[in-house]
Amino acid sequence: MKILIINSGSSSIKYQLMEMPSQQIRCTGIVERIGYSDTIFKYRTDFVELLETEPIKNHKVGLQKIADYLLNPKKGVIKDSKEIKIVAHRVVHGGNTFSRTARITSEVKNKIQQLCALAPLHNPANLEGILMAEHIFSSAKQVAVFDTAFHQTISTKAKKYAIPNEFFEKGIQVYGFHGISHDYVSKKAIAFLKQSESKIITLHLGNGCSVTAVQNGQSIDHSMGFTPSNGLIMGTRSGDVDHGLIFYLVNSLGYSLEDVNTLLLKKSGMLGLTGHGDLRDIQREAEKGNKDCQLAMQMNAYRIKKYIGSYVAAMNGLDALVFTAGIGENSNVLRAMVCEGMEYMGIRLDKSKNRNKSDGVWEINTSDSSVKILVIPTNEELEIARQAHALLNGSHN
Amino acid sequence: MKILIINSGSSSIKYQLMEMPSQQIRCTGIVERIGYSDTIFKYRTDFVELLETEPIKNHKVGLQKIADYLLNPKKGVIKDSKEIKIVAHRVVHGGNTFSRTARITSEVKNKIQQLCALAPLHNPANLEGILMAEHIFSSAKQVAVFDTAFHQTISTKAKKYAIPNEFFEKGIQVYGFHGISHDYVSKKAIAFLKQSESKIITLHLGNGCSVTAVQNGQSIDHSMGFTPSNGLIMGTRSGDVDHGLIFYLVNSLGYSLEDVNTLLLKKSGMLGLTGHGDLRDIQREAEKGNKDCQLAMQMNAYRIKKYIGSYVAAMNGLDALVFTAGIGENSNVLRAMVCEGMEYMGIRLDKSKNRNKSDGVWEINTSDSSVKILVIPTNEELEIARQAHALLNGSHN
Repeated sequence: MKILIINSGSSSIKYQLMEMPSQQIRCTGIVERIGYSDTIFKYRTDFVELLETEPIKNHKVGLQKIADYLLNPKKGVIKDSKEIKIVAHRVVHGGNTFSRTARITSEVKNKIQQLCALAPLHNPANLEGILMAEHIFSSAKQVAVFDTAFHQTISTKAKKYAIPNEFFEKGIQVYGFHGISHDYVSKKAIAFLKQSESKIITLHLGNGCSVTAVQNGQSIDHSMGFTPSNGLIMGTRSGDVDHGLIFYLVNSLGYSLEDVNTLLLKKSGMLGLTGHGDLRDIQREAEKGNKDCQLAMQMNAYRIKKYIGSYVAAMNGLDALVFTAGIGENSNVLRAMVCEGMEYMGIRLDKSKNRNKSDGVWEINTSDSSVKILVIPTNEELEIARQAHALLNGSHN
Repeated sequence: MKILIINSGSSSIKYQLMEMPSQQIRCTGIVERIGYSDTIFKYRTDFVELLETEPIKNHKVGLQKIADYLLNPKKGVIKDSKEIKIVAHRVVHGGNTFSRTARITSEVKNKIQQLCALAPLHNPANLEGILMAEHIFSSAKQVAVFDTAFHQTISTKAKKYAIPNEFFEKGIQVYGFHGISHDYVSKKAIAFLKQSESKIITLHLGNGCSVTAVQNGQSIDHSMGFTPSNGLIMGTRSGDVDHGLIFYLVNSLGYSLEDVNTLLLKKSGMLGLTGHGDLRDIQREAEKGNKDCQLAMQMNAYRIKKYIGSYVAAMNGLDALVFTAGIGENSNVLRAMVCEGMEYMGIRLDKSKNRNKSDGVWEINTSDSSVKILVIPTNEELEIARQAHALLNGSHN
């Protein structure tokens, strides 16, 4: 069964065509910089790999172009749009409405629309992708897989803020994000551990960064909250700050609130500390002796360490620490900094295993470490395909 | 030597007259609700205890009244204002200028004035107290003891926010508060441990609440940051929130930024969650089955647990956990909730020792607990007197 996976972002569409249950990838690609004059269109199959740069004005045109290529007699992988049985959409915000993957109906679309207020950068683009896919792949079943759903198991004591109760009733609470990734790698870790009960911390370190405490397969706490702004230091996002500084920036330094929002989301994090947006550049500069880059790496690792400690306390123990996503999978330097001096927590890194890259689930702790340290490549597309396939084939309720 | 200790708040003046080095308290009291029609004036010596309610319009009048009572032929404890050799002032914000107690000069006063922007509720009142004391006790030496000074040892990686560097240069960083209390109880804990090296977490749980990680006697991290808004859940302050909710409250729910500031500082915390401002009431209601009060207690304890975990990670170990201030010293219920399920951290509470109140440094862990759990009554006035006395008598530089 062919499943088309669509991850529609504010100015991009990532897509993958996968056979399920074989998990064979028939096609993969991305449309980036939608709405700009230099939109990049990437498309790859077993036989074809291409990159085009030409203006694509909106998501509708982008998705139509993807469909045209999939159906192209020479470069395509399907002969008829009806071959695609499911279109599975990543949707960022499912609020408290969606604690699992859902078949898309009018009611589901209405709910996703209502949740745009909570994810103004993401949900509108997700919804547009759904509407377009319904139009182009009209015979396929449409499914929504939510990035917040995995975190719906977080208890009230951990998801509520200490503000008047009326705001909790208005939906102001921890939702959590990157749930598809945390779900995927925590399941991999549980399979690796082969224990009936487990305490796992998953570190998703990419452009966005977040940590989840996963106890017995369920998210019990998470570093991002009501929005994806807080928690760890990210590429351009500050993560945790004393919120008091917002009032100071506006009232004493004369910034507009809009400027402060932009500052904390787009100009902060590793970029704000170093001038570099890419951790690889920062790491290289740090090695060359750049003090700002060295400090930013230390701050980043220190913040991660503290989140690990807080979740070890929350679970009263730890079986495995999992690194995933671009930085988590590739920066042995950051992993080493995070794991240094964590013996009291039972965490002991094997420096040589950490340096020698391996495939699949990759164990990098010493043999006497009571905590397993694992590097697990994330695969959100596979998780989305699996959940959509399971929903419509009865193995997942 | 007689030292008058003045703690001048936004609408109150706490005072104590102490003999040093004997630490004998000659007089103690408070003026509360300054500026209201029902100002409360409390004054107590070994022979006299009185409470008066009458309007006191400002700090100047309040401090003059204190002086009048101290000098009163019948109720007073001194015959001449010259008997007071030192007036020691608690000053909330010393910024990066003051890493230790300072003799007050014109320059020091200018600096305290400049730092009013960072502590608009506290520094102006502290400064007014200094000016008045210079006038009334003109022959005494005036000393400032800063609540931020103890935290000046926090490293850059822990005190810097992940926002552009220009803001760090403008003084936006973690300062930390309640330093006089954390300093006092951590020294007591170190004396109790009798170790040359030590890792201690001090929990100051009063109306304001904060945690400090104290390694080898130095503050290395602290839960409050640039302002005293964040960190633990407090009486009326939210402590940590996702700062993203501020933008949502303003942009989507139509609140003014000023209202949001008031909301997070004055209407949140335990009050916002339960309608009660006093933890004793909340605890009583929780025991009677009030769900909001039960949840607020759980949230409070859970937040504290997570901070403990994060600081254990930061120090890679823990020798002692210290509870202090009104709630920390008196709520065995909250202490039990915080310490429950913390065995992985080496923390094991003796429930019976925890219930049976004792004097001085009071150990409440089990004999097999690798971490000492201590209840230590704080005494900011004594710490202020000691530091002022040491500064002017050469035993402290």
